[in-house]
Amino acid sequence: MSDAAAAIWTELKAMPQRTLLELFDDGERVSKLSDRIEWSGEDVLGEEGAKWNSGIQFDWSKTHLDDALLTQFEKLSEAMDFSGKRAAMFGGEKINNTEGRAATHTAQRGVGTDAAVEEAMALHARMKMLVEAIHDGALGDIKHLIHVGIGGSALGPALAIDALTRDFAKVDVHVVSNIDGTALEQAFAACDPKTTMIAVASKTFTTIETMTNAASALKWLEDNGVDDPSGRVVALTASPEKAVEWGVDETRILPFKETVGGRYSLWSTIGFPVALAIGWDEFGEFLAGAQAVDLHFQNADGRANLPLRAAFADLYYARVRGCQTRAVFAYDERLDLLPDYLQQLEMESNGKSVTAGGDPVDGPTAPVTWGGVGTDAQHAVFQLLHQGTHLIPVDFIASIAPGDDLNPAHHRILLTNCFAQGAALMAGKESDDGARKFEGNRPSATMLCDDLDAATLGALIAFHEHRTFASAMLMGINPFDQFGVELGKQMANAIEGGGQSFDASTEALLEQAGLG
Amino acid sequence: MSDAAAAIWTELKAMPQRTLLELFDDGERVSKLSDRIEWSGEDVLGEEGAKWNSGIQFDWSKTHLDDALLTQFEKLSEAMDFSGKRAAMFGGEKINNTEGRAATHTAQRGVGTDAAVEEAMALHARMKMLVEAIHDGALGDIKHLIHVGIGGSALGPALAIDALTRDFAKVDVHVVSNIDGTALEQAFAACDPKTTMIAVASKTFTTIETMTNAASALKWLEDNGVDDPSGRVVALTASPEKAVEWGVDETRILPFKETVGGRYSLWSTIGFPVALAIGWDEFGEFLAGAQAVDLHFQNADGRANLPLRAAFADLYYARVRGCQTRAVFAYDERLDLLPDYLQQLEMESNGKSVTAGGDPVDGPTAPVTWGGVGTDAQHAVFQLLHQGTHLIPVDFIASIAPGDDLNPAHHRILLTNCFAQGAALMAGKESDDGARKFEGNRPSATMLCDDLDAATLGALIAFHEHRTFASAMLMGINPFDQFGVELGKQMANAIEGGGQSFDASTEALLEQAGLG
Repeated sequence: MSDAAAAIWTELKAMPQRTLLELFDDGERVSKLSDRIEWSGEDVLGEEGAKWNSGIQFDWSKTHLDDALLTQFEKLSEAMDFSGKRAAMFGGEKINNTEGRAATHTAQRGVGTDAAVEEAMALHARMKMLVEAIHDGALGDIKHLIHVGIGGSALGPALAIDALTRDFAKVDVHVVSNIDGTALEQAFAACDPKTTMIAVASKTFTTIETMTNAASALKWLEDNGVDDPSGRVVALTASPEKAVEWGVDETRILPFKETVGGRYSLWSTIGFPVALAIGWDEFGEFLAGAQAVDLHFQNADGRANLPLRAAFADLYYARVRGCQTRAVFAYDERLDLLPDYLQQLEMESNGKSVTAGGDPVDGPTAPVTWGGVGTDAQHAVFQLLHQGTHLIPVDFIASIAPGDDLNPAHHRILLTNCFAQGAALMAGKESDDGARKFEGNRPSATMLCDDLDAATLGALIAFHEHRTFASAMLMGINPFDQFGVELGKQMANAIEGGGQSFDASTEALLEQAGLG
Repeated sequence: MSDAAAAIWTELKAMPQRTLLELFDDGERVSKLSDRIEWSGEDVLGEEGAKWNSGIQFDWSKTHLDDALLTQFEKLSEAMDFSGKRAAMFGGEKINNTEGRAATHTAQRGVGTDAAVEEAMALHARMKMLVEAIHDGALGDIKHLIHVGIGGSALGPALAIDALTRDFAKVDVHVVSNIDGTALEQAFAACDPKTTMIAVASKTFTTIETMTNAASALKWLEDNGVDDPSGRVVALTASPEKAVEWGVDETRILPFKETVGGRYSLWSTIGFPVALAIGWDEFGEFLAGAQAVDLHFQNADGRANLPLRAAFADLYYARVRGCQTRAVFAYDERLDLLPDYLQQLEMESNGKSVTAGGDPVDGPTAPVTWGGVGTDAQHAVFQLLHQGTHLIPVDFIASIAPGDDLNPAHHRILLTNCFAQGAALMAGKESDDGARKFEGNRPSATMLCDDLDAATLGALIAFHEHRTFASAMLMGINPFDQFGVELGKQMANAIEGGGQSFDASTEALLEQAGLG
């Protein structure tokens, strides 16, 4: 860290800590800390005259950010050259310095260098052709897709399909990630091999879980009398030559660029199962929603930049208040998988101990992101949020438009509970009885969506990508590598290979499991 | 806290902190810290001559517990009268002092006072009759059950059914908890109203989510031409009179005792959907596995008591090492829902700020329990576990017998990865390149099951119940109340009721959502 940044942190830590209720003495607080990102029908549908607007309200007023803290964090972002780093990302520079790569996920949404955007659009055009050919029956009667991939190749598709196909899916998609065969068997049980395609999603096309599952899925097609099992396989990969070697026909390989990181890959051809399930037009809306946030993030400065403002709060809680976790609760069943998605995005990106330059960091990096859905979580973990000993900043996410057609009481009670929890965490409650006392002064942020459609989901995810990037830049780390996953892989290979010895506990466990 | 306990904590915090690899210099370490709880075929099946044994190995050797720490924690458990408190729980005393109730969940498994066990068995007999009547077709052709309940009335049934019915379920059960109507609509889409029953699970029979979902489910039956919708409802409740008022026939009310806490209720009639899905015999095996752990917990002392030993480690990390979280990764797809279940069990029980006497606690209480399934999590969050700045104690859970019938490579790779991760977290790896360096000395515990059958699942859950109880007793708190969920409910009611004003942020959100 530069001396300037270190001095700013020292000042930050010494700043007065006012309670949330004290901060609300400022009558302008909500207007200062609650803002909207929106997009129009024209942006999303590409149709002139589609005049509607939609958006998301980002209310950070119930966090401890105040004018003084915002000013101080703006100084920090200058000291860390946030604007320069942001320009470098959008400009296609190799900001993933340890791997010598650019990060071009925004180009998949049309924002980046001309060359990167053009390349992304060409790959999208190829994906579109295949998606529409399948919908048109050119590859036979396809009703099911078993999408095999793990980590970044699984969590994004699973989230988007779960969120956007509750009413209807053009193709029934099952995402299988775990090497545990139980996962794949469950997909088999739900699909008819005669009408099932297999998508194999792996950036390197060597991921052991994915290649093992792909082989077993192919065998299942074969065992069930499918004539040309390989003819049913689509490969989504940054290593198309490996897919060819594995036996996938080039016409069914959808490549993406190495500069698209796994956990940022949903927008690339890794989104194939999503496009297949929701259709190409809706996939385009999904990209357009993300683009709206890209443009906001690229152009807004300081506290007016909402992902950056969120990163200010995240860093404040992590480094000043010592919070080791942050929680996210979507008050919407369709976002059931969002906490898992954000866990990977944030923890794999920013769960680091060294700066981009390889030096030890000067403070804690990513907290543990965890969460669930409301109202379920109220009956499970909110006890600790309200009365536990740990301070946990909470995000709430909800949609004004309901996702269901039942009695409107369902959605009304859902929303009132969401808002009530934020209010209660902040207000607390006095009581002479210790067990019934609520300390209050517990922070939360609320993201209130007009509706949870494809564009909104795209915007929500892009918001969190940029929030994560902003945090990384303010901490001086590289969010785009993940060397931390290597050692476990090497050890597993060493065990598989045999002939090596391990610690006494590991040896005993291997022995007990009959693998010694 | 007593002066004695305070002095013990002061000493604990001052004890030398040796690395895990240093601790493994003790050649006896694994035998000292890895032990088995087992049960026999006779115990589980109640059949003489069923001579097989099954069990779980609990390996805590890769934690920082050593002889000196174990001795010190044994002193703490004496100072906190752990044995007396444990005897009070099994003896039916009102250890839930703030609510003036005993805690009789173990009696559901046959361990407790004669009166409590007898009462539990009588209620079980009634549940068994109804389960078998349904299986025998006495209530018509029943293929589906929509089980409506939330929190403790949902997480246990969902976990047990997901874990135990991958191959086959006698009745297809859908657990619906969220007030969000999208959840209920998804269950509707999967069920045929003509062959669907509804179970309404609520301790008080007033839970707003559950009663709203129950009403909508009833309406769905009615709208779809079912003659006597109320005749299809089973109530699982500690308030049978409320269920009668609501219109459930007494013959289909399965009561349980108020002394069974919501998050400890899976063993009571809240287990009805589980018994319906797996059959009464297998439900009996589930109870028997839990009983094996009850008897161990009741009779073993000090470090030989495995749930107590686990609590020693949990408290060590929470209070000496400052860990705000602990993670659990089941390397088994069937235990996908276990982290959610344990989250509620541990965070709702021990996420408190006051002692059982109402005084402020002297240190942090429950950490945030979070996790996922391996190998998926390796590709999502293990980056932070290996290279992040936070120390996070990890539990691994795996089964020696596979859950699938695919190529044995699936299960072999699953297990080698599980063991490799524990080895890698401990060993670390030196590197001149900061980004490729692994600090190591990160603790984990491993629970290795012979097989993941009903008895084993029962044992695993009971182990965690007692671990949670042991932690609570060592901290001097009451794990059986949950007043922390009340304030949010009151605020939601106040919003629903109208006429009150809230903070400016909440008012603005209500306004935006059209609820102002």
